[in-house]
Amino acid sequence: MSSRPPKRNTKERILESALSMFNRFGEPNVSINAVANDLGISPGNLYYHFPSKDSVTEALVQRHNAELTPLLNSAHQAEDVETAWFFMHSLFEHVWQARFIYRDQNDLLTKTRLLEDMLHDMLERKIQAFESLLKGLQSRGWASTEIHNLGHVAHTMAVVINYWMSFAYVRNPRQALEPDAQQAAVLDGVQHALGLLLPYLQPVAQSHLKAIMAPYQATAAGD
Amino acid sequence: MSSRPPKRNTKERILESALSMFNRFGEPNVSINAVANDLGISPGNLYYHFPSKDSVTEALVQRHNAELTPLLNSAHQAEDVETAWFFMHSLFEHVWQARFIYRDQNDLLTKTRLLEDMLHDMLERKIQAFESLLKGLQSRGWASTEIHNLGHVAHTMAVVINYWMSFAYVRNPRQALEPDAQQAAVLDGVQHALGLLLPYLQPVAQSHLKAIMAPYQATAAGD
Repeated sequence: MSSRPPKRNTKERILESALSMFNRFGEPNVSINAVANDLGISPGNLYYHFPSKDSVTEALVQRHNAELTPLLNSAHQAEDVETAWFFMHSLFEHVWQARFIYRDQNDLLTKTRLLEDMLHDMLERKIQAFESLLKGLQSRGWASTEIHNLGHVAHTMAVVINYWMSFAYVRNPRQALEPDAQQAAVLDGVQHALGLLLPYLQPVAQSHLKAIMAPYQATAAGD
Repeated sequence: MSSRPPKRNTKERILESALSMFNRFGEPNVSINAVANDLGISPGNLYYHFPSKDSVTEALVQRHNAELTPLLNSAHQAEDVETAWFFMHSLFEHVWQARFIYRDQNDLLTKTRLLEDMLHDMLERKIQAFESLLKGLQSRGWASTEIHNLGHVAHTMAVVINYWMSFAYVRNPRQALEPDAQQAAVLDGVQHALGLLLPYLQPVAQSHLKAIMAPYQATAAGD
């Protein structure tokens, strides 16, 4: 892709190209030489910036974690179902942008100890964020305080967030993770994650969330 | 493992050894020579029965699908929350026995067209089974007919079933898929999958399901 502006920092360009190729083909299927080739630089130049493919992967996961952090830390501020929707939508957008991490997570975490730690840490922080989100909605009177097991709901939300892209991929391997599928995948994921909340919401909040979700039901790929 | 009875059919022994090693180390990390070595047979002997590692994997996935079929077909017969619990428990036991399929599903499906088709088919049949389960509980009066979107709940159940082992693995990569973890992983998965039903159950059925789940809450690894 030689049309890229030549002045951009090489390290940044390597990460950008690797992210794009990992997302399209899966991290295990992309060699570091293919990334160098895509950028029109020598493998030697690439290795000057990153000693191994794993270090590129680590840098991308680290960046994804850093991008998620302020969002996850804001979960307790969800004031109503509208902000909860916005929170979940933002989260799925981030997941989409780094979907290679979610596509082959179990394979990635066996590669290096740092990847294992980062992926574990990110998942635990998501679970905590969902607990904060639920407690926030409860404390503001939007959600029932009788959720049988709030931890269960938060864990299930984390499973949906973490594996939605994998689920979409098994259902439609040739298209689900291609750029065109972004809107459908994100909206469908948001609806299934927030759908977990629906039965626990007070009637006013439940109607509100259904009204927010209604326009997207028709386009959802999961039905 | 030379203590195995020598008379067992070699093909069967290959599948059994591969299943055990794939489950422990992950399919991508086990070579076909390692399986031959584990059995104390020559790679040539193994290749006589299976032309490639992928064909071993295909045979194991095919067998898993065949084992699931009668169970999935019985989903509509769930008469009450007790039989629903039994259904889900049996399903998770099968998933555990073939957990390598669930650990690296996205990697597996890129290997051969047959694997892609089988994994896709199995997931769709699970979704259909959960819809049947939910409709059965509704028609018998146990679950509310006002489930906002029955398809959503069934899809979310499928995500939980398909990725519970992956989720447990990210949370605890060194222990979650080891044989000792079986009981905790299975019970925890069943509770999260059936927990999706809880808010939609009629009061009597809800109390019944809570009573069934209560003894296991303490041992659940997900809390």
